[in-house]
Amino acid sequence: MILLFNQDFCCDQTVRLSDRRSEHIIQVLKACEGSKLEVGLYKGNKGIGEITRITNSELDLKVTLNKPPPPPLPLSIILALPRPRMLRRILISLTTLGIKKVFIINSYRVEKSYWQSPELKNKKIDHFINLGLEQAKDTIPPEIEFYKSFKKFGEKALPKLINANLGFIAQPGSNNSCPFNISQPATLAVGPEGGFIEYEVDKFKEEGFIPIDLGERILTVETAIPVLTAKLFKF
Amino acid sequence: MILLFNQDFCCDQTVRLSDRRSEHIIQVLKACEGSKLEVGLYKGNKGIGEITRITNSELDLKVTLNKPPPPPLPLSIILALPRPRMLRRILISLTTLGIKKVFIINSYRVEKSYWQSPELKNKKIDHFINLGLEQAKDTIPPEIEFYKSFKKFGEKALPKLINANLGFIAQPGSNNSCPFNISQPATLAVGPEGGFIEYEVDKFKEEGFIPIDLGERILTVETAIPVLTAKLFKF
Repeated sequence: MILLFNQDFCCDQTVRLSDRRSEHIIQVLKACEGSKLEVGLYKGNKGIGEITRITNSELDLKVTLNKPPPPPLPLSIILALPRPRMLRRILISLTTLGIKKVFIINSYRVEKSYWQSPELKNKKIDHFINLGLEQAKDTIPPEIEFYKSFKKFGEKALPKLINANLGFIAQPGSNNSCPFNISQPATLAVGPEGGFIEYEVDKFKEEGFIPIDLGERILTVETAIPVLTAKLFKF
Repeated sequence: MILLFNQDFCCDQTVRLSDRRSEHIIQVLKACEGSKLEVGLYKGNKGIGEITRITNSELDLKVTLNKPPPPPLPLSIILALPRPRMLRRILISLTTLGIKKVFIINSYRVEKSYWQSPELKNKKIDHFINLGLEQAKDTIPPEIEFYKSFKKFGEKALPKLINANLGFIAQPGSNNSCPFNISQPATLAVGPEGGFIEYEVDKFKEEGFIPIDLGERILTVETAIPVLTAKLFKF
């Protein structure tokens, strides 16, 4: 799916593209005049775009947007800031899964230098989210909130999260297996490599989060998130 | 967990390490004489290694290996060769999940150039599998078989795979949701970006593979494999 933005519209129902999207359409999809492509308006409907003009680098699409995006997954994720290169892949993965709320937080075992990474710039974050939306044929991006202080997160955001939701914290060795096909919204907290420290786990527990694990094997954050999401929700 | 090999043993119960493993133990884990570490012998038992000598670059561990590795997952994966950089991450992920048999095959939509990648060299493949074993605290590597020809795979390997096993092929749009907590061994086929072509899907179906999907959203191979694995098996 090609993701469109309001500023792409040059007149009523026509968008003009001349960036990585037109490049992809021309060079990878090898589309021509008259080709019909799946499109979606950022935060809006999905539909079909028909190529009405195409050059080596630019194209016009006449679009009809009449289908809603896929339903969201009622899951929020709390993620201790991972290694920046891993963050981008996790953002794509989270977005494709339909997760709409992500808290990226500090934790004792997060490398301080990660917070200085250029990967954390809004433009980069948005780029990877948009790639995830195109992959999943979705148009609604997840909201991302950063907390550079675990304490502040614990005081400001954490107490509001559990209201009417279930809360789980991934904690290897906790000997509680992950529940299956739950029917309530949930929040899932995933620690850094090496895990949350006891003080942090206790904060989550105080707010009603239930520790869960996936057996003897320790998965990377990248693998654990899709696994836990797939177990918690039917899709 | 530190993965050990027979050739690391310098005498009866002692291994001598002076490569990326000792570097990790010295610089990241900041271990010292007397520190005890989780270790596992490649294809063998797991246990504890106690540091008996340590320098800036080298160390000796006295090891006791008395615990079996975690049980394998009764799942084989058939994977259309992905982009090489993605392959390494998928190999780590598959290994951490406990998958012990992987067929990496050609498909019409696999870029021919991928087969020339240096990432496909045995040494590279083994390296990423070993990283996955260390991550998951496992010692039994998956067996990897390559088929550069889909036809040959279809004739030689595919007919033997389904015996007493269930077979599934990930096929977006098939409208069959993925079964849950199955109790039989299974084989799962995952296509390239863009999916298997009809001829290929038909070959799988002829051999008894059932098409399954994950709803409207199209996931990347990296995300789809942990999701499908988590749905198929209880862990």
